This record gives sequence, C-alpha cells and structure tokens, in this order.
Amino acid sequence: MKKIYFDYASTSPVDPLVIKAMEPYFSQAFGNPSSPHALGREANKALEESREKVARLIGAVPEEIIFNSGATEGNNHVLEEIIPSLKREANHVIVSSIEHHSVLEPIESLRAKGFNITFCPVDPEGLVNVDHLRKAMSEKTGFIAVMHASNEIGALQPIREIGQLARERKILFLADACQTIGHIPVNVKDFACDFLSFSAHKFYGPKGVGALYVRRGVNIAPYFRGGDQERGRRASTQNVAGAVGLAKALEIGHSQMGQEAAEQTKWRNRLLREVPKLIDGVKVNGHLTNRLPNNAHFSFDGLGSEALLMSLDMAGICASMGSACTSGAMEPSHVLRAIGLSDELAFGSLRISLGRWTTEEDIECLLKELPQIVRRIRI
Amino acid sequence: MKKIYFDYASTSPVDPLVIKAMEPYFSQAFGNPSSPHALGREANKALEESREKVARLIGAVPEEIIFNSGATEGNNHVLEEIIPSLKREANHVIVSSIEHHSVLEPIESLRAKGFNITFCPVDPEGLVNVDHLRKAMSEKTGFIAVMHASNEIGALQPIREIGQLARERKILFLADACQTIGHIPVNVKDFACDFLSFSAHKFYGPKGVGALYVRRGVNIAPYFRGGDQERGRRASTQNVAGAVGLAKALEIGHSQMGQEAAEQTKWRNRLLREVPKLIDGVKVNGHLTNRLPNNAHFSFDGLGSEALLMSLDMAGICASMGSACTSGAMEPSHVLRAIGLSDELAFGSLRISLGRWTTEEDIECLLKELPQIVRRIRI
Repeated sequence: MKKIYFDYASTSPVDPLVIKAMEPYFSQAFGNPSSPHALGREANKALEESREKVARLIGAVPEEIIFNSGATEGNNHVLEEIIPSLKREANHVIVSSIEHHSVLEPIESLRAKGFNITFCPVDPEGLVNVDHLRKAMSEKTGFIAVMHASNEIGALQPIREIGQLARERKILFLADACQTIGHIPVNVKDFACDFLSFSAHKFYGPKGVGALYVRRGVNIAPYFRGGDQERGRRASTQNVAGAVGLAKALEIGHSQMGQEAAEQTKWRNRLLREVPKLIDGVKVNGHLTNRLPNNAHFSFDGLGSEALLMSLDMAGICASMGSACTSGAMEPSHVLRAIGLSDELAFGSLRISLGRWTTEEDIECLLKELPQIVRRIRI
Repeated sequence: MKKIYFDYASTSPVDPLVIKAMEPYFSQAFGNPSSPHALGREANKALEESREKVARLIGAVPEEIIFNSGATEGNNHVLEEIIPSLKREANHVIVSSIEHHSVLEPIESLRAKGFNITFCPVDPEGLVNVDHLRKAMSEKTGFIAVMHASNEIGALQPIREIGQLARERKILFLADACQTIGHIPVNVKDFACDFLSFSAHKFYGPKGVGALYVRRGVNIAPYFRGGDQERGRRASTQNVAGAVGLAKALEIGHSQMGQEAAEQTKWRNRLLREVPKLIDGVKVNGHLTNRLPNNAHFSFDGLGSEALLMSLDMAGICASMGSACTSGAMEPSHVLRAIGLSDELAFGSLRISLGRWTTEEDIECLLKELPQIVRRIRI
C-alpha cells in the first residue's frame, strides 16, 4: 500500500540532491578533516565550505557554527555548559513552558541544583506573551530559552521581540529553530539570539547531524572533551558527509522556501478550515496564522489518539500525536496542558505535518478518510 | 596524482557495501524510529536489527548497546556519568597513561573535583603492566579505563587479564575498542568489561555514529536528556542509516577479519623490519608482536614530523604523526612520553596505518620513497 506521509515535523526523507552531495564524502574524499595530508585537507575544505554556507544562510559568521549530532545535543550543550557558568547575580533563568524536552529536562536538573527557574506560560493559542515575559525578567535574569515554533502545535513565537528584550538587558538567549530552519526565514541577527540549535533531519538532511550557533564573543565550554575539533568546542572526528548534507539541505530549503511555504500554508489552511466542518467536536490547536506553514493540530472529543493513529496507519496515512520523542508517553503533552487543554482532549490529539513531497491528492485523501475514521472510532 | 593512504587509524573510507546498506534509510525507510506508524516501525525494525547484529558480534545482548555519535561521546558519557556516581568509599579511579584524550580530559576535570586518580604507566613497549596495575588497585578503586589498543603506537593491551582483575574486585571497567573492533576479535565477555566504546568510521563505517556497550545491570544516567530513545540512556532521534551502516561494517569486518589481519600483519612486519634497515637512526615504537595488525610506528633521529609528513604528502602518501585529534598540537604526544621517548624523538614520529585497500604496491612505494625523503630532510 502506498503510504501518505503527514509526519514531516517528526523527521523528513533526505532530499535526493542532499544524498548526491554527501556521496563523495563517504568513500572518496573520506579523510579526517584534522589530518594535515591531502585527503584530510580535502575533507576539511568540504567541512569549512559547509560551515560557511550554513553561516551565510542564517546571518552568522563561520566560527559561530558548531557542527554536532543534532538539536538535542545543542540544547543540552547550551543548558549544561552555559547556565552553571552564569554569575551568581544573574542565575535566574526563564524558559517557555512549551519548550522541547531537550530543554526542559536539563532545566529540571538545574532547578534541583538551586538555579532559579521561571517557566513562562503561553496563551491559549500557544504564544508566549511578550509582556508577561518582560514582567518575569528581573535584574537577576541571565538566560532565556524560547523555541522559534512549537514542534507540537506549530505556534510561531514572537522570537524577534523576545530577542530584542533579551539583548537590551544583556540576557543570553537560546532559540531552538528545529521546526523552522530550512522552512521559513531564520536569521540570528533578526532573532538577536546568542544560541540557535537545529537538526538536519527536520529539513530533508540526514539524521544524526545538526549545528549549534554560538554568537561570537560568547564563550561556551565544550560538551564533548578530548580533541580540538570545532575550535575546541566539540571534540570528536567531524561527520563531514553529514555536515555537507546539512549545508546542502539548508541551501535547497532556502532556494525553495517561498514557494514551498506558500503551498503548504494553502493546504494547512484548508485542513484547519475543513476538518472542523467535516467532523463534530474538533478543536484546532495553536494560533491560526502565527503558525508553521506545514502544521495542523487538532483535538477530538471522545476519542483516543492511539486508536485514531492506528486507524489512519491502517489506511496508509502516517501521522502523529504531537512529538515522536515522547510517543510512548502515558502523560498528556506538556504543550497541550500549557494551552489549557483538558487531559481528555489532549489524549485525543492529531498532528498533521506537511512537507516537500505532500501533494494535493494527499490532502484530499486525508479529508476523505479522517471523518470516516473518527466516526468509526467514536461509535 | 594517485594517493596512497596510510592513515586508516585516523579514519577509513566507507565500504561500498556499507553505503549500499545505508541507502534505503535516507529517503525510503526514512521514518523516525520513535513514530508508531508504518514508516516509523520500519525504521525501528532496521535500528533494532542493527542493534542485535552489533550485540551478537561482540558477545552482548541488544539492550546493552547504545547507539551514539562515536567513541568520544561514549567515553565522555561513561566518565562523566559513572565516576561522579561512584560511592565515596570507591572513588579511586585508575586509567592508563596512554588513553585517548576523550578519556584523559574528562578525567582531569574529575581530578580537579576531588576524585582520586591514578595514571597507570606503561612499559617502554607501550604495554600496561598487569602487576603494576594490580598493585595500584586498592579497596577504594571503583573504576578502571584501559584502551584495547593504542591509537598511536598500536600496542595491544592485556585487556582480558585487566578485565579479569577488575571483575574479581567488582571494579567497573571501560575498554576503548576504537582501534580494534572490526579488525581483530573484540568480545565483551572475554574482556570482562562493563563498558566498551567505539566509532564506526574506524572500521569502514560512516563518521558521526558509534556505539557504547553498557553491561546489563549497570545503571548509567543519560548523557543527552530530553527523550526516551535508547532505553532512556541517550535522547535524540536515532541515526538509523548510521546504525545500519555501523552494523553492516562490523559484519563485514568480522567476515574478513582473519584474512585481512593476516595480510596486514605480514606487511606491518615487513615495514617494522625493513624501515630500520633502510634508514639509520630509526626507533620502532610499540610492542613488536602485541600490536595492531595495521600499525607501524617509528621515530627518526634529527628530523621533524611536520617536514616528513609534508614531503610524504607531496609524494602522494597520506600518513600521520600519531593522532589526528591532536595533529595541530605543539606538545609532544603523551603516549610517546609515556613510553619514555625524548621530546626530540617524539617530534620525529611517523604512524603508518594499513587497511582494507592497502596493496603490496603501496608498501613497495613507501619503502622506496621513505628512505629518500628522510635522507633529503636530514641534510
């Protein structure tokens, strides 16, 4: 059976052009970029060209880019190396209540170690209220983390205003751009962020590689120790093919961004509009317009996500409840709780995320199947 | 110009069969293994089959294998999560003085935090003396790290005896198998180790992926936090293609091990025998027989490695001083110091490491070029 993939927010296929760009770095230009010989220099050249490309596309300079294994590492790196280094008089930290677990879990350990943490709530549409955030700030605030867009409900945060607020007060600011980079504009200067984390596999690059932007002038201790790679900020032989793939994927993303975002926005709006018409007892989650172009998120009355996803799966439709990282979880999503959903509604959720290979027919098929399936389950 | 590659210990080309095995997991079976839908299950199946394969090939069970980004992560993970959790009455740690920096650097930070560390010396041939190690052990020893083989001088450590000693005393034991796995037999039961770290790119797998064996019954806190992947021991979307590639590379390594090791041993012995005959003032480093099949390591009187490597490079020969991770270093190698070499000799070192695509002609070429180059530089 042909599969219809509506889980691009969880991971995406690698673009064939990305695979092609990576290929030479597996068996031909395979050197260790730290080796001074010809094969090492060739690998290093590819690595540094990829770094330059990534830097240019996000408004950074090359030495601000650390290649790593992905955003979980990036987020952990920033939280575990930066927060403990904050001065005593600036050890208040603010994070949005809808951050990814790779931010929230390290934050919980830091809280246990005596750091003063404020979880900034979001409004019912999933947006951080900038006034609220401003009020939460104090002279002791040293660090803020707010993601660019929610991986679950797609709400696009007022990241530029938050960055501005943080910059004016000299507060370090981490923006998790996992869901946005390669899909919509992401620029570290616009964001006024000090750290930006992302993974290649969310924008048609390979799994297992990502990057962390660290603003020039901000010192960060290495997360991996034992080698001088990445200017001493991440030991370990660099994944050259992965870095080349990440850079290529970002380049393709940028070149097709306008057109893809427009098309996905059109389909997303159709879903947000038609699903509640076709099915009773549906709530659209997240903001209607301040929203990822590719995200539609619903909660259904009287219905469990598990049964819904299983039935969709049997119809060849791959979708998700919200976050693959916690898909085995028995707890309702912290994001859906944060927007005020009841546990019952939270457990009846569906995330549809679109991507480069989504077609009009896929949307038609979903709009045909979903109402039937929901009706069947609800009986 | 055709390149002759003698730097397999630094990194290796990906075997074409490994690339072939990985390919379907880039764009076809590309799902997130944590996703419950068909594409996720397909990816998860490949991941778990790879885990089973790796486990079987090293004498482990699948749940003892954590896929990660490589041995630097693995070594850091063990040192930073296990040592701080040692009970006060078992906070003495022994590491060999020739460990990789990804062991030594975290150890230095732990020492600064008050852990009691003993660096176990090696004899002039680079071997840890088991009697010496036994004497260094006390009732307070809780952890030992000894690598299976030196990445620089190739000395194969008496890992089974060390493991036995540790096991009898209930001391946790980390064996870094970066240079050996896929090349010579590595079995966690034989080694009696609690942890084993390795990277795929050292045995014809891709860069950016590795695995950490953690013996069943040993609890290790996650190094990356924020997801339940790898049984809660390593958050982050798994690199499925990478894990498949690692497992395939290990499988190929095992199937060709006897023949490859025999051939490389023959060539290695020829180099160890002939280079000192062809060139005056040469010292062979490392043990002559307790040695990696693919490693030949020399120090030359009155000669700088940099000039030597550059001249070899100009002749199309890629070789190394010892470790790519520290190739920019101005300090003499800690390994060469540990075997008692003078700084002058240490700075005149050359590591020749052989691999799957080394040919008789490559060896001939080296034996022809090296004496000429050394003579030219020494003038």
